[in-house]
Amino acid sequence: MSKKVVTFGEIMLRLQPDNYLRFVQVDHLEATFGGGEANVSVSLANYGLDSVYVTKLPKHEIGQAAVNSLRKYGVDTSKITRGGDRVGIYYNEKGASQRGSKCIYDRAHSAIAEAVPADFNWDEIFEGAEWFHFTGITPAVSDSLAEITLEAAKKAKEHGLTVSCDLNYRGKLWSKEKAGKVMGEICKYVDVCIANEEDAADVFGIAASSTDVTTGKLNREGYIEVAQKLTERFGFKKVAITLRESISANDNNWSAMLYTDGQAYFSKKYALRIVDRVGGGDSFGGGLIYSCVNEFDPQATIEFAVAASALKHTIEGDFNLVTVDEVNKLAGGDGSGRIQR
Amino acid sequence: MSKKVVTFGEIMLRLQPDNYLRFVQVDHLEATFGGGEANVSVSLANYGLDSVYVTKLPKHEIGQAAVNSLRKYGVDTSKITRGGDRVGIYYNEKGASQRGSKCIYDRAHSAIAEAVPADFNWDEIFEGAEWFHFTGITPAVSDSLAEITLEAAKKAKEHGLTVSCDLNYRGKLWSKEKAGKVMGEICKYVDVCIANEEDAADVFGIAASSTDVTTGKLNREGYIEVAQKLTERFGFKKVAITLRESISANDNNWSAMLYTDGQAYFSKKYALRIVDRVGGGDSFGGGLIYSCVNEFDPQATIEFAVAASALKHTIEGDFNLVTVDEVNKLAGGDGSGRIQR
Amino acid sequence: MSKKVVTFGEIMLRLQPDNYLRFVQVDHLEATFGGGEANVSVSLANYGLDSVYVTKLPKHEIGQAAVNSLRKYGVDTSKITRGGDRVGIYYNEKGASQRGSKCIYDRAHSAIAEAVPADFNWDEIFEGAEWFHFTGITPAVSDSLAEITLEAAKKAKEHGLTVSCDLNYRGKLWSKEKAGKVMGEICKYVDVCIANEEDAADVFGIAASSTDVTTGKLNREGYIEVAQKLTERFGFKKVAITLRESISANDNNWSAMLYTDGQAYFSKKYALRIVDRVGGGDSFGGGLIYSCVNEFDPQATIEFAVAASALKHTIEGDFNLVTVDEVNKLAGGDGSGRIQR
Amino acid sequence: MSKKVVTFGEIMLRLQPDNYLRFVQVDHLEATFGGGEANVSVSLANYGLDSVYVTKLPKHEIGQAAVNSLRKYGVDTSKITRGGDRVGIYYNEKGASQRGSKCIYDRAHSAIAEAVPADFNWDEIFEGAEWFHFTGITPAVSDSLAEITLEAAKKAKEHGLTVSCDLNYRGKLWSKEKAGKVMGEICKYVDVCIANEEDAADVFGIAASSTDVTTGKLNREGYIEVAQKLTERFGFKKVAITLRESISANDNNWSAMLYTDGQAYFSKKYALRIVDRVGGGDSFGGGLIYSCVNEFDPQATIEFAVAASALKHTIEGDFNLVTVDEVNKLAGGDGSGRIQR
Amino acid sequence: MSKKVVTFGEIMLRLQPDNYLRFVQVDHLEATFGGGEANVSVSLANYGLDSVYVTKLPKHEIGQAAVNSLRKYGVDTSKITRGGDRVGIYYNEKGASQRGSKCIYDRAHSAIAEAVPADFNWDEIFEGAEWFHFTGITPAVSDSLAEITLEAAKKAKEHGLTVSCDLNYRGKLWSKEKAGKVMGEICKYVDVCIANEEDAADVFGIAASSTDVTTGKLNREGYIEVAQKLTERFGFKKVAITLRESISANDNNWSAMLYTDGQAYFSKKYALRIVDRVGGGDSFGGGLIYSCVNEFDPQATIEFAVAASALKHTIEGDFNLVTVDEVNKLAGGDGSGRIQR
Amino acid sequence: MSKKVVTFGEIMLRLQPDNYLRFVQVDHLEATFGGGEANVSVSLANYGLDSVYVTKLPKHEIGQAAVNSLRKYGVDTSKITRGGDRVGIYYNEKGASQRGSKCIYDRAHSAIAEAVPADFNWDEIFEGAEWFHFTGITPAVSDSLAEITLEAAKKAKEHGLTVSCDLNYRGKLWSKEKAGKVMGEICKYVDVCIANEEDAADVFGIAASSTDVTTGKLNREGYIEVAQKLTERFGFKKVAITLRESISANDNNWSAMLYTDGQAYFSKKYALRIVDRVGGGDSFGGGLIYSCVNEFDPQATIEFAVAASALKHTIEGDFNLVTVDEVNKLAGGDGSGRIQR
Repeated sequence: MSKKVVTFGEIMLRLQPDNYLRFVQVDHLEATFGGGEANVSVSLANYGLDSVYVTKLPKHEIGQAAVNSLRKYGVDTSKITRGGDRVGIYYNEKGASQRGSKCIYDRAHSAIAEAVPADFNWDEIFEGAEWFHFTGITPAVSDSLAEITLEAAKKAKEHGLTVSCDLNYRGKLWSKEKAGKVMGEICKYVDVCIANEEDAADVFGIAASSTDVTTGKLNREGYIEVAQKLTERFGFKKVAITLRESISANDNNWSAMLYTDGQAYFSKKYALRIVDRVGGGDSFGGGLIYSCVNEFDPQATIEFAVAASALKHTIEGDFNLVTVDEVNKLAGGDGSGRIQR
Repeated sequence: MSKKVVTFGEIMLRLQPDNYLRFVQVDHLEATFGGGEANVSVSLANYGLDSVYVTKLPKHEIGQAAVNSLRKYGVDTSKITRGGDRVGIYYNEKGASQRGSKCIYDRAHSAIAEAVPADFNWDEIFEGAEWFHFTGITPAVSDSLAEITLEAAKKAKEHGLTVSCDLNYRGKLWSKEKAGKVMGEICKYVDVCIANEEDAADVFGIAASSTDVTTGKLNREGYIEVAQKLTERFGFKKVAITLRESISANDNNWSAMLYTDGQAYFSKKYALRIVDRVGGGDSFGGGLIYSCVNEFDPQATIEFAVAASALKHTIEGDFNLVTVDEVNKLAGGDGSGRIQR
Repeated sequence: MSKKVVTFGEIMLRLQPDNYLRFVQVDHLEATFGGGEANVSVSLANYGLDSVYVTKLPKHEIGQAAVNSLRKYGVDTSKITRGGDRVGIYYNEKGASQRGSKCIYDRAHSAIAEAVPADFNWDEIFEGAEWFHFTGITPAVSDSLAEITLEAAKKAKEHGLTVSCDLNYRGKLWSKEKAGKVMGEICKYVDVCIANEEDAADVFGIAASSTDVTTGKLNREGYIEVAQKLTERFGFKKVAITLRESISANDNNWSAMLYTDGQAYFSKKYALRIVDRVGGGDSFGGGLIYSCVNEFDPQATIEFAVAASALKHTIEGDFNLVTVDEVNKLAGGDGSGRIQR
Repeated sequence: MSKKVVTFGEIMLRLQPDNYLRFVQVDHLEATFGGGEANVSVSLANYGLDSVYVTKLPKHEIGQAAVNSLRKYGVDTSKITRGGDRVGIYYNEKGASQRGSKCIYDRAHSAIAEAVPADFNWDEIFEGAEWFHFTGITPAVSDSLAEITLEAAKKAKEHGLTVSCDLNYRGKLWSKEKAGKVMGEICKYVDVCIANEEDAADVFGIAASSTDVTTGKLNREGYIEVAQKLTERFGFKKVAITLRESISANDNNWSAMLYTDGQAYFSKKYALRIVDRVGGGDSFGGGLIYSCVNEFDPQATIEFAVAASALKHTIEGDFNLVTVDEVNKLAGGDGSGRIQR
Repeated sequence: MSKKVVTFGEIMLRLQPDNYLRFVQVDHLEATFGGGEANVSVSLANYGLDSVYVTKLPKHEIGQAAVNSLRKYGVDTSKITRGGDRVGIYYNEKGASQRGSKCIYDRAHSAIAEAVPADFNWDEIFEGAEWFHFTGITPAVSDSLAEITLEAAKKAKEHGLTVSCDLNYRGKLWSKEKAGKVMGEICKYVDVCIANEEDAADVFGIAASSTDVTTGKLNREGYIEVAQKLTERFGFKKVAITLRESISANDNNWSAMLYTDGQAYFSKKYALRIVDRVGGGDSFGGGLIYSCVNEFDPQATIEFAVAASALKHTIEGDFNLVTVDEVNKLAGGDGSGRIQR
Repeated sequence: MSKKVVTFGEIMLRLQPDNYLRFVQVDHLEATFGGGEANVSVSLANYGLDSVYVTKLPKHEIGQAAVNSLRKYGVDTSKITRGGDRVGIYYNEKGASQRGSKCIYDRAHSAIAEAVPADFNWDEIFEGAEWFHFTGITPAVSDSLAEITLEAAKKAKEHGLTVSCDLNYRGKLWSKEKAGKVMGEICKYVDVCIANEEDAADVFGIAASSTDVTTGKLNREGYIEVAQKLTERFGFKKVAITLRESISANDNNWSAMLYTDGQAYFSKKYALRIVDRVGGGDSFGGGLIYSCVNEFDPQATIEFAVAASALKHTIEGDFNLVTVDEVNKLAGGDGSGRIQR
C-alpha cells in the first residue's frame, strides 16, 4: 500500500490571460487552480503516493471546482473542510523576454484565511500518515492560519510524522519581521527545510556573502553556508536550496543543492526554455518528498527533485503533471526532447 | 452639446463559462465587466449622452481593465476614484430551458464597498449635470456605501438634478427590513422610480393583489396599484415597472408600464428568445432615462425603454450595445429580425 | 456512510465539433468522455452515493484521461482494470432543427471490448455494495463482454445486490436477434428494467399497439402494456419507460412512466429546449437508481428521475452535472429558469 | 461520368463575430468564404456533380485561401483567373430574436469587380458543360462585371447550356432602375429564374397584389401571379420563388413554389430554428439545379430544393454542407431531428 | 494638467492567424487595430499624456470598433472625422525561426486614403497642443493624404508645436523616388526625425558605408554618419535611429542611437525573444516623444525609448501596453523577467 | 503540363492538445490530418506538381474530412478507395525544453490497414506518372499493406517510374527483424532512398562507426559510409540522409547529405527554433522529389530539400505549407525572418 503524505494550505483560483497577453487585453481568462501546497499534493498523487490535501473551501460551485481539480489527479480530498464564502484568487500574467510575470493576489477573506482551529481535526487527519508538508505561505495568509499551522506542525511531530516546510517568503503577504518571528517558531517542528537563497535571507536574515539574484551567477560556497546556518539554528535534518539563474522570462538555468549530515550535494544544471514557471519550486518540493519517502540516496534525491521541477517548467498551470518514469528518464540523462514514437 | 448624466455604483468583473457550460466543467471563463449602474452608463454613452460613471477601483491592472471597459464605449471615467484592493466579482452561469441561471457574488471588500465619503466630491461631479442615477444595489453593498448614496442623492437634488433609482432588491446582499429602511430614506430624494413587482414588495411591502411571479401571468390592475402606492408614499414623478413572464431560461415575455401624472401607459409585449438576460432591467433604465432626458411623451418613453431592453436580451454581456436608431427601428415595429444588407 | 452502487460498461472518448458545426468543417474537436454506464455512475457520485465504476482502460495517457474524467466528479475508479491498447471513441455531431444529430462509433477493439473474464474480480468489487447497474450496450460490444456482463449479473444476485439494466438497444452494434437472445438470458438476473418503447420492441419484440416514434404522439395505454409484458416475461420488480416526443433536434417533450406492483405512475411532462441530448436516458437511470436506493415512493421516484434527465438536456457533455437540490427544485415545480441571485 | 455545371460570380471573405456577439465586442472573427454563386457551386459539388466555379482572385495567400475553401469541398477551381489586388469582404453579424442580422459590404475594388472580359475564355469554360448559373449580384458589382455576365450568358446559350439566374437584388450595390435595365437584358438568355417576391418587385416591378414581407403571411395566388408575369415577360421555362416568413431572427417558416408549364407546385413548409440563414436562398438554387439536371418531376424538384435549403439554415457558414441522402431523408418526411446512431 | 500630443495617420484592422499559423490554415483571425501613428498615440496615452489621434473612419460598426480600440486605452478620439466607406486592412502572418512574417496590405480606398483637406480643421486640432507626430506611411497612402500631411506639418509649425516624423518607408505603398520627393518637402517642417538605416537610404539615398541589414552586424560609425547627413540636409534638432539585428524571426537584438547637438548617444542593447515585433518601431517613437516632452537628457531619452520598444516586442498586437513604471524598471537595469509577486 | 507523382500510404486523424498542454489537461483537441506519405503529397501539390495520393478511407464523414484535407491543398484524391470502418488516429503531445513530444498510435484496424490488393488498380493509377513514393511506415502497418506496397513498387518499375522510399522505421509498429526482411525485398525496386542514420541501422543493421544520436554531434564520414553501404546493397541511385541534432524539444540543428554517383553533398545547417517538428522528415522528402523531378544539380537538390524542411519546422501540423518561392528564398540565404511588407 502506498505511503500517506498530508499537505496543508490554500488552493486558489488562478486567472490568467492566454499565452503572453496582458490583463488589459483580454476578455477571457484561463481559470485553473493552484497553490504552493496543493501543487505538492498533486505531484505526490501523480507519483502514486496516498496524497491527502487539507484546506477549507466554500460549499458553492467555485469551491467544488477547486475540489474537483484535485480529485481529478488523484488527491484525497475527503479531509477538506467545506464552508466560508470565497475561494482565494490570484491573477497571473505570464512574462516574456525582458518583461517579467505579474501576479496580483486577491486572496484576503478566503475560506481558508478565515478558518479557525476547530475546522481541522489533526489527530484524525494524521492517522496512518508518514509525512506532513506545508509552506511559509500558509501562516502568512492570516493570524488564524499561522496558529493553525503551528498546531498542525506540533501534532504532526506528536504523531511521528516527518515534517517539511518550504519557506516561500511572499513580501505581499507579510513583513520580513513577522515572517521571521512566526516561521522561527514553526520551524522548531520541521525536519526538512526547502528554500531559495532569498527566502533564508528574507525570513531569517541568513544570507550568503556575495550572490546577487539579478545576475544569476551562482555562489556554491554561499549556499552551503546558508544551509549550514539554517541547520544550526533549527536542527533541520535536511536543507534543500533551489538555484535559479534568470536570464530572461523565457530562459532560466535551474539546479539545486541538498545539504544533509553536514554534506552538500549539487544537482545537474538544466537550461530551461520556460512554458510556465509558476509552481516550479513546488514541483521541486514534491520531487524531494517523493525521494525522501522512498529513501533515495542524497545525490539521487536532489537529481530527482531537480529533474521533476525542470519538467514542471514545460507544463502549463500550477500542477506538475509528470510521472515517476518521466522524471527518471530526464534525471537519467535524456533531455534531448526527441519524439517518443 | 449633449446632456450630462451621472451614474454611481459598483462595476464588477463578471466571470462566466462559455455558452451553457457549468462552472465545474470549464478551465476558461469569459471575463467582462458589468454592474447595474455601469450598465445604464454604457447605454447612455451609446445613445450619445455625456455619460459620467462614478465608482472606486483599485490602481492595479484589474481595476484598470474595468476602467477601460467603460472608456471603450465612450463613458467618461475621469471621476472614478482609484484606490482600494479588489475589484468585486460575480460568477455567472447561464441557464437553459428548465435550468435557471446561477449567480455567485464575490463582491465583499471591494474597493467601492470599502469606499468612504471623502472619496467623492459630489459638488464637482454634479457640475453641469442634468440627471443622477443609481440603484438599490449600491446602498446594499455596505453601510458606508449606503451613507455615500444618500449623500449623493441629497447633493443631486441640491444641484437641481433629476434623480432616478432602480430599486433592484438583492436578497443576497441585505434583508428586506434593512432594504426598506435605507431605501425609504433615500427615496425621498428620488424623482423617477424603476422597479419590478417583486422589488416593491420586497423593499417596501407594496404588492399587487394576485400576481404570482412563477406563473408569469400579468395582472395589469395590480401593477397600476403598486405604482400608485409608490407614488403616494414617496411622491415620485414617474414610476416604471418592468413585466417579465418567465416561460423558461430561454424564453421570456417582456413589457413594461410607465405611471405618471396618475396615468398608466403599457408598452407592447415582446416574446424574447434570450441570448443573455443579465442587464435586461438596466437596459430598460437606460432607455427610460434617455427618453426622459429627451422629453419623449409617456407612451413613446415606455416603448423606447422596452424596445431597448428587448434588444439587450439578444446581446452577450452586461452592456446594452445598441444605438438609438436600432431601438427606434424596433420600437417602430420591425421585429422580424431580417438581414440588413 | 453513503450507499455503494457499482456500474459496469465502456467509457469512450467523445469527439464533437463545437456548437452546431459539422464534422467536415472543423479542425478542433471537443474531447470529453462518456458512455451509458459511466454517465449513470457520475450522476450517482454527484448525488453523494459511493459510486464505483468498473471498466478496462489502457495504461497510456488517453486511458488516464478517461480515469481522471471520472475521478474529477467523485467516482471511485480504484476497481478499473488497466491494460489493452485503445480507448473506444465516438464522434458526435450535434443536430439542429430538421437536421438530426449524427453519431459515428469507433469503439471496436477497445480495451474493454477485448477484456476477458479474468480482468474483473466480482467478489471483491461487489463487497459492501447494494446495487449493480449496466446497460444493454455493454454486452453488445463484444462476445467476451456479453459473457462478462452475464457473470457480473449473476454474481451481483449472489451477493444480494439489486440489479438494474437499461436495455439501450444500439442497432449499429448488434442485430435484434442477437440482442434478444443475449439480453433475454441476462435479464433473468435483473430487478429493475429501464427502456424506451423502441428498446422493448427491438430487443424482445414487445411493442405497444399503435405508437409511431416519428410522430411523437404518446400512447399511455401502450406503454403500460409494454411494461406489463416485460414484467411478465422477466419478473422485473420495476419497469421504467422514458417517453420522448421529438419535435425537432432542438425541441423535445420528455416524460416517463414507472410500472411497479402492477401500477403505472406517469411523471409530469417537460418541454425541453435542448442543449445536449446525449446521456438524457442515462441521467434518467441515474435519477431512478438514486430514488430507489433512497426508497422514494413510486410517484416521487419517477418525478425525480424525469426532472434529473430534463436538466441533463440543458448540460453539455455526457455527464449530468446536477445536484440533488437542483433536481428537487425542478421536480417540486420551478422550471421558469429565473436567475438565482 | 457526372454532369458539369458552371457557376460565375464573386467569392468573398466573410468576417463574422462568434455566436451572437456584436462587431464592437470582439477581437476575433470567423474567417470563412462565401458568395451567392460560390455557395451554389459547393452545393453541386457536394451532390456529386462536376461543379466548376469561375471568378477572379488575387495571387496572394488570401486569394489562395479562397481557392482552397472551394477545392476542399470538391469544386473544380482550375478555371479561376488569378490576379488583381483584393478579395472582397463582407462583415456579417448574426441577429437574434428581435435583432436582425447586419451585413457590411467591403467588396468594391475586388479582383473580380475589376475583372475585364479578356480574363475569361467562355468557349473553353463551357466545353462539355450542361448548365450555367449566376445571380443578380454579379452584374451589380461593377459595370465591367455586368458586361462579362451578359457575354457569359450569351455564350452559354450558344453552347446549348441551360442558364439559370437567381435575381438576388441587393439594394446596397445598385439602384432598382439600373438593376431592372441590366437584368432585363441578361434575362433574355435565362431559362430558369429564381427569385423571392421582393426581387421580382425590386428588379422588374412585378409584384403580387397584397403580400407584406414584414408580416410573413403568404399569398399563394400572388406568387403564382408573379411567376406568370415573369414567364410572360422573359419566356422562362421555370420560375422558382422562395417563401420566407420571418417570425424573428431565430425562427422562420420556409417553403417555395415552382412554376413551370403554366402550373404551380408548392412545397411543404418547414418551421426553422435558424443556425445561420446566410446562403439559405443559394442552397435552394443548388437544390433546384441538382433536381433539374437529374430531371426530377416538378413536385419532387421543389421538395428537394426546399429540403436542401431547410437544412442549410442549420449549418454555419455560407456553404450548404449536406449530401443528397440527407436532403432526400428530410424531403421524404423525417424532420424529427433524432440522433442517428 | 498633462501635455497634449497630436498624431495623425491611418488605423487599420489587423487580421492575423493565431500563434504561428499560416493564412491558408485558419478559419478564425485575430481582429485588432493598429497603424504606425495610432500605435504612438496609444503609447502616449498609456504614459499619461493627453494624446489626441486624428484620422478619418467610416460611420459603420467597423469604423466604430476602430474608435473604440483607441478610446479603451485613453486616446482622445473626439477629433476623428467620421465618413467614407472602408477601414483599411492589413493581414499579418507571424513568422518563426527562418520563416519571416508576411504582411498583405488591403488599405487602398480606405476612408482616410480618400480624405480631403476639408475633413480636418488643423487650427482647432492643434489648439493647446505641444507636439505633432506622423510617419512616412501617411503621405504614402494617397496623394490627397500627402497633401493633407504637408498642410498639417506646416500648420503645426505655425502653432509652435514640435513636429516629429518617423520615415517608415514602405515599398509596397510608393516608390523610393516619390517618397524622396514628398518626404523631402514635408521634412522641412520636422524637428525630430526617427528612422532606421534602411529608411534613410530608401527615402533620401543617405546610407552608411558598409552595413548589410541581413547580417545584422552593426556599424556605429555608419549610423552617426547617416544622422549627420540627415541633420545637415533638413536641420533636424534630433535624429533617432533604431538598430535591429535580425537573427531569426524569434530572436533579434535591439538598440538605438540618438543624435542631437552634434553628439551621438547609443543605448544598451537588448537580446529580444520576440512575441510580436509589429509596432516595435512605433513604440520607440512613443518612448522618444514621451522622453522629449518630459525633457529627459539625451542618454535617458534613448534608454527610455529603447526599453519601451524592447517591452513592445513581448506584447501581442500593434499597441505597446506598458506603463512608465515598467519602462523605467527595465531601463534601470532589471531585465531578468522574474515574477513580480 | 505539370509532372505527375503518386504517393501511397496512410493518412491519419491527428489529435493534439493546443500549444504545450498535456493530454490529461485538455477537453479540446486539434483535429488535423497527416501521415508520412500524405505529407509528401501535399508538399508536391503546393510546389505545383500533379500530386496523386492513394490510400483507403471510410465513406463516413471522418473519412470524408480526411479527403477534404488533401483536396484543400490541391492533391488529386480521385484514386482514393472508399470503404472500411475507421480512420487511423495518432495522438500527439508537443514537447518543450527537456520534455519530449509524445505520440500514441491508435491506427490498428484502419481502413487502409485492412485494405486488400484488389482495392487498388495500379496500372490505372500509374498511367502518365513519373514518380512513385512511399515510406517504410506503410508496409509496417499490416501484412496486407506490406504485400500491396511490394506490388505497387514492382508495378511502378514496370511502368518506368522512378521509385523513392523513406525508410522511416517505427519501432511501435514492427520489429527490426521484420522491417529488415520486408524492406529488404521492397528496396530492390527503389531508386531513391531517404533515411536518417537510425533508420539504416534499425532496418538494415547498417551503422556508422561512432555517432550517438543523443549527443547530436555529427559524424560526416559515418554518414557517407552508411550511404555507400546502402547503395552497394540495393543499387540505389541516390541516398539522402537527414542529420538532426536535438538540443532540446525547442531547438534542433538540421542539415542533410545527398549521396549520388559516389559523391556526397552536404547542405547548409539550420539552427531551428521549432514550432512543430512532426512531418519534418517528410517535408525533406517532398523537397527532394521536387528537386529531382526538376533535375536540380545535387548540391541544389539537397539545399532545396533541407530549406523546405527547415521551413516545415516553423509550421503547425503535418503538412509543409510553403511555396517554391519561399523555399528558394531561404535556400538562397535569407533566414533572418524579417517582415515582408
